[in-house]
Amino acid sequence: MKQNIQETQGKQNTQSNQAMLNNQAKQKKQAMQNKQAKKRKQDIQEKQDAQVKQVSSAKQLLHRKHSKHGKHGKLKIIPIGGMEQIGMNITVFEYEDDIIVVDCGIAFPENEMLGIDLVIPDISYLKRNALKIKGIFLTHGHEDHIGALPFVLKEVNVPVYGTKLTIGLLENKLREHKIIDTVTRNVVSASDTVKAGAFSVEFIGSNHSIVDASALAIHTPAGVVIHSGDFKVDYTPIHGSKPIDLQRFAQLGKEGVLLLMADSTNAERKGYTMSESSVGKAFDTLFAESSGRRIIVATFSSNVDRVQQAIDAAVKNGRKVAIEGRSMINVVAVATELGYLNMPEGTVIESNHINNYEDGKLVIITTGSQGEPMAALSRMAINQHRRIQIKPGDRVILSSTPIPGNEKTVSRVINELFKKGADVIFEDTHVSGHACQEELKLLHSLVKAKFFIPVHGEYRHLKKHAELAEELGMPSDNITILANGDVYEIDENGGKIMSKIPLNLIFVDGLGVGDVGNIVLRDRHKLSQDGLMVVVVTLDKRTGKIISGPDILSRGFVYVRESSDLMVEAKGVVSEALITILANNPKDWNKIKNGIKDVLNNYLWQQIKRSPMILPIVTEI
Amino acid sequence: MKQNIQETQGKQNTQSNQAMLNNQAKQKKQAMQNKQAKKRKQDIQEKQDAQVKQVSSAKQLLHRKHSKHGKHGKLKIIPIGGMEQIGMNITVFEYEDDIIVVDCGIAFPENEMLGIDLVIPDISYLKRNALKIKGIFLTHGHEDHIGALPFVLKEVNVPVYGTKLTIGLLENKLREHKIIDTVTRNVVSASDTVKAGAFSVEFIGSNHSIVDASALAIHTPAGVVIHSGDFKVDYTPIHGSKPIDLQRFAQLGKEGVLLLMADSTNAERKGYTMSESSVGKAFDTLFAESSGRRIIVATFSSNVDRVQQAIDAAVKNGRKVAIEGRSMINVVAVATELGYLNMPEGTVIESNHINNYEDGKLVIITTGSQGEPMAALSRMAINQHRRIQIKPGDRVILSSTPIPGNEKTVSRVINELFKKGADVIFEDTHVSGHACQEELKLLHSLVKAKFFIPVHGEYRHLKKHAELAEELGMPSDNITILANGDVYEIDENGGKIMSKIPLNLIFVDGLGVGDVGNIVLRDRHKLSQDGLMVVVVTLDKRTGKIISGPDILSRGFVYVRESSDLMVEAKGVVSEALITILANNPKDWNKIKNGIKDVLNNYLWQQIKRSPMILPIVTEI
Repeated sequence: MKQNIQETQGKQNTQSNQAMLNNQAKQKKQAMQNKQAKKRKQDIQEKQDAQVKQVSSAKQLLHRKHSKHGKHGKLKIIPIGGMEQIGMNITVFEYEDDIIVVDCGIAFPENEMLGIDLVIPDISYLKRNALKIKGIFLTHGHEDHIGALPFVLKEVNVPVYGTKLTIGLLENKLREHKIIDTVTRNVVSASDTVKAGAFSVEFIGSNHSIVDASALAIHTPAGVVIHSGDFKVDYTPIHGSKPIDLQRFAQLGKEGVLLLMADSTNAERKGYTMSESSVGKAFDTLFAESSGRRIIVATFSSNVDRVQQAIDAAVKNGRKVAIEGRSMINVVAVATELGYLNMPEGTVIESNHINNYEDGKLVIITTGSQGEPMAALSRMAINQHRRIQIKPGDRVILSSTPIPGNEKTVSRVINELFKKGADVIFEDTHVSGHACQEELKLLHSLVKAKFFIPVHGEYRHLKKHAELAEELGMPSDNITILANGDVYEIDENGGKIMSKIPLNLIFVDGLGVGDVGNIVLRDRHKLSQDGLMVVVVTLDKRTGKIISGPDILSRGFVYVRESSDLMVEAKGVVSEALITILANNPKDWNKIKNGIKDVLNNYLWQQIKRSPMILPIVTEI
Repeated sequence: MKQNIQETQGKQNTQSNQAMLNNQAKQKKQAMQNKQAKKRKQDIQEKQDAQVKQVSSAKQLLHRKHSKHGKHGKLKIIPIGGMEQIGMNITVFEYEDDIIVVDCGIAFPENEMLGIDLVIPDISYLKRNALKIKGIFLTHGHEDHIGALPFVLKEVNVPVYGTKLTIGLLENKLREHKIIDTVTRNVVSASDTVKAGAFSVEFIGSNHSIVDASALAIHTPAGVVIHSGDFKVDYTPIHGSKPIDLQRFAQLGKEGVLLLMADSTNAERKGYTMSESSVGKAFDTLFAESSGRRIIVATFSSNVDRVQQAIDAAVKNGRKVAIEGRSMINVVAVATELGYLNMPEGTVIESNHINNYEDGKLVIITTGSQGEPMAALSRMAINQHRRIQIKPGDRVILSSTPIPGNEKTVSRVINELFKKGADVIFEDTHVSGHACQEELKLLHSLVKAKFFIPVHGEYRHLKKHAELAEELGMPSDNITILANGDVYEIDENGGKIMSKIPLNLIFVDGLGVGDVGNIVLRDRHKLSQDGLMVVVVTLDKRTGKIISGPDILSRGFVYVRESSDLMVEAKGVVSEALITILANNPKDWNKIKNGIKDVLNNYLWQQIKRSPMILPIVTEI
């Protein structure tokens, strides 16, 4: 096993070509945020430290005993995220006093998480065990695998290992968060092995919808664990990329693998996922038959191979390429600098210059394939893009499929593009990055692990993947479906969930991290459904009599000008009720407020079957 | 053409087996609602009446002139809903002084329509022309075709025509809204023709995901218009239903059809839609291989044929059937009474009695196939159903596909069912109710209309259907894609959009109809994203000085207990700013309020990058 790690502590490996917006404002306030968060977390940590110390000294004793007898301890595996969800992948591997972490991603908020920007993992366990952590190992550079690192590294600063593009994309984020100088990044290559305490982590070249993806073989005293990362089997990836290293999986399999943890995203899909290069062929055909027409290709910015294929097709057809959308510009810059994108000089032109070229000589590669409202393609579709207007004859190639939940927003963009006279193409212009059933069977058969944990999927996918492993001959007792927080312990005799660590969802909203919880979300939900009514009353401090009010105002409840009867009547109802309420509860503010709430709530429900949030404001003077 | 219309004014044809919840409360308040709505609408109507009279007298003159020369006038077609959307289908056909309306459906709210229950069409045009309307003709009984009738018939009470099941389902609604006694319902059969002013409306038997669906041939002095309704071509529908009457389409085509208006829902899908009976075969196989296990079938309540097939499979396998979910119970009751559901006596058992039967002897047919949070299956999945708990071994058959936008909620239900140990099956257990490309081609080829308007689809579907018509040889000038409100006029020489009537979306929220508009929704959106901050200040009326406050409270903004620093600081900022604001704007409430808003807004954005709604409340005493 060769060791070929470039350590680049505190240095900027790559440079972004576009200054991040808002950085300055963000930075100013981050100090304050961090202070708040730290204080809160200190309290928790102090409480838990005593307990943790106890447990670990007991464990050390136990392990020493084992080692004396030449026996191995058990390996603990704790998924902190990524189970029963697609997103927020982060898994802890713990052996005696050593911990490594695989991936550290964000999840995008569910619909009911109103106003939330991101969800990041709850790393209380890592903070409690910060001294044990030997490193964070990244399988690839997607948001759901690296997106939470800036938040996590501020709390637990440990070395990070990943392939060149993965680290390049991470560095963009660290720069945005102004922590690039404090984080140790280690660039590894496929087949490299990193020693990290009791672990040796071997990177195995793989295929996915981002280049430089890796599976990991985690060599531990308890046995070898293979973690597939996100993968597919691509025998004909595009030039520059290699097919997944099936031989290495086979070799490890022959030598004996304790546990396989593998991607379940497409476990419900039969057959094979098509090769990335099939998209290039579709591009070639489409570009060739679009002479004289402008071509716009929308795809995921991180899919560098896809971007390369669009560029290749452009070059072949004598077209210039303009890059649009903040993240597309960023990724193309990183990928070009690191040598992942190749094109003849002069291929890419500035977006400002597109009007200097004929439509038939242009390709615009852009973000927005998921219908994200602020992305470039979405803005073009509704005529709100600064530089690019959609016009009849434009060919828009959606090189993507909607991620579940995005179907409607994508459809809106398609509708708008068609209305502007564009031709929108979305057939045969995308392939998945995840293995379908036949590929999963291949991996299982090469690795022939003793035990299996399906990862990276909703419960339905994990379940299906578990069934698939059983069909391949694995005893069902050897297969475990984990939930986030489960503490799974395994050695050659078997694996078992031994305990559970409590986890919270940590919401990021603006600059706030963790300051929005269920109570705030419940209020937002209530406000979103029926709005708000404020009742204002001023009372005399001595007599308890009404000096002014009750006045009522509402927001998001009803269009007041058209419902003045209702509002006047509501005010009357509260006025009348207040006489009794005040008489029965002199100076008891809580009872007065609750009395107002009850009477108004009942009235509105009877009248109009709505229950806005009611906010009674009682001032005493 | 035979005439075989049963008129049933003021009589209840069918009886619901379950009293509707909330009816009494709703009714009490409806009077008030109606009063408000009426007043508002009267104002508008008065304004427009003069204008309309002018236009119509000019038009009448023109028409008389035409008639003198033996020429025909033009037919006006105005889609009030259903264009560029899937839902809210309602189309006006107007010839001289006669109007008929085809369908009258609701749309389900889009995600951004927070708190809205339903969207109904804006029928201002119908109210202005109420005296011209000869009837509303229903193609089938789905919500997006009949759901708005109770609201519309309260405003414009005209006779309604539809097949037996369609009228049966409508009567349920009219009963709920307490207007069954005032509405004239006319039950027609396939091949019936109804004379309505200048129009003769012929019902043509069709196939769809609800029985008793019809296409319409609308015979007008300007020519014949064929409106497909929602349709598919099913050569082997289940017993009791007939295949679509292709011969009649062909015959009309031979005689000459002016205009085809046809369903575009599946215009993007190649090939044919499978026959409904293919689902029955899948049920048979699944039921046969599930011995000893309880079976739960979830589907759309309105899909009576699907329910029939589940019942057939149950009977074949010696199972009893329990019906769950309010709308399923209602539809099964109506369909059974009207003879659309057939089963041996004793097949259906009360849900309360399911514990008296072995799992292997039971089928539960239920609502909830779209993951609707309150539907029976969703409640079973999260252990919140009163009678039915999911247990290991249960087989749940999802006989549906998620409607776009429902993917995530359906997936949640599937995940929960799997977690409870159920087996969830969703392959080959559903077919669409809409024609795919090959069926559309068949219809176009039989009808051979001179002109074409694609209907029932988002813009992308309408566009694709238009392209398909062009591929079949229709000149592109003869194809028109309409938007809601377009006034399209056609005769044998051609069709053209001549004008546009303004339309609003009418939102139903609780008992309120039309009292929530864009301002209210904008407020709800803002409240949903970052919550609310209320600033309360009491001023001395004479001096303008502060007597009490400023006090700040928030909801849905931040968890106050953990962010007390921020709240205290915000209060300080407002306090300080108020001194200047009051000095500069003595007694100018608006400026004082805006001053408070600005200063707090700036502070919060700088601190935490959120902008809650800020509600300054200034009381003078």
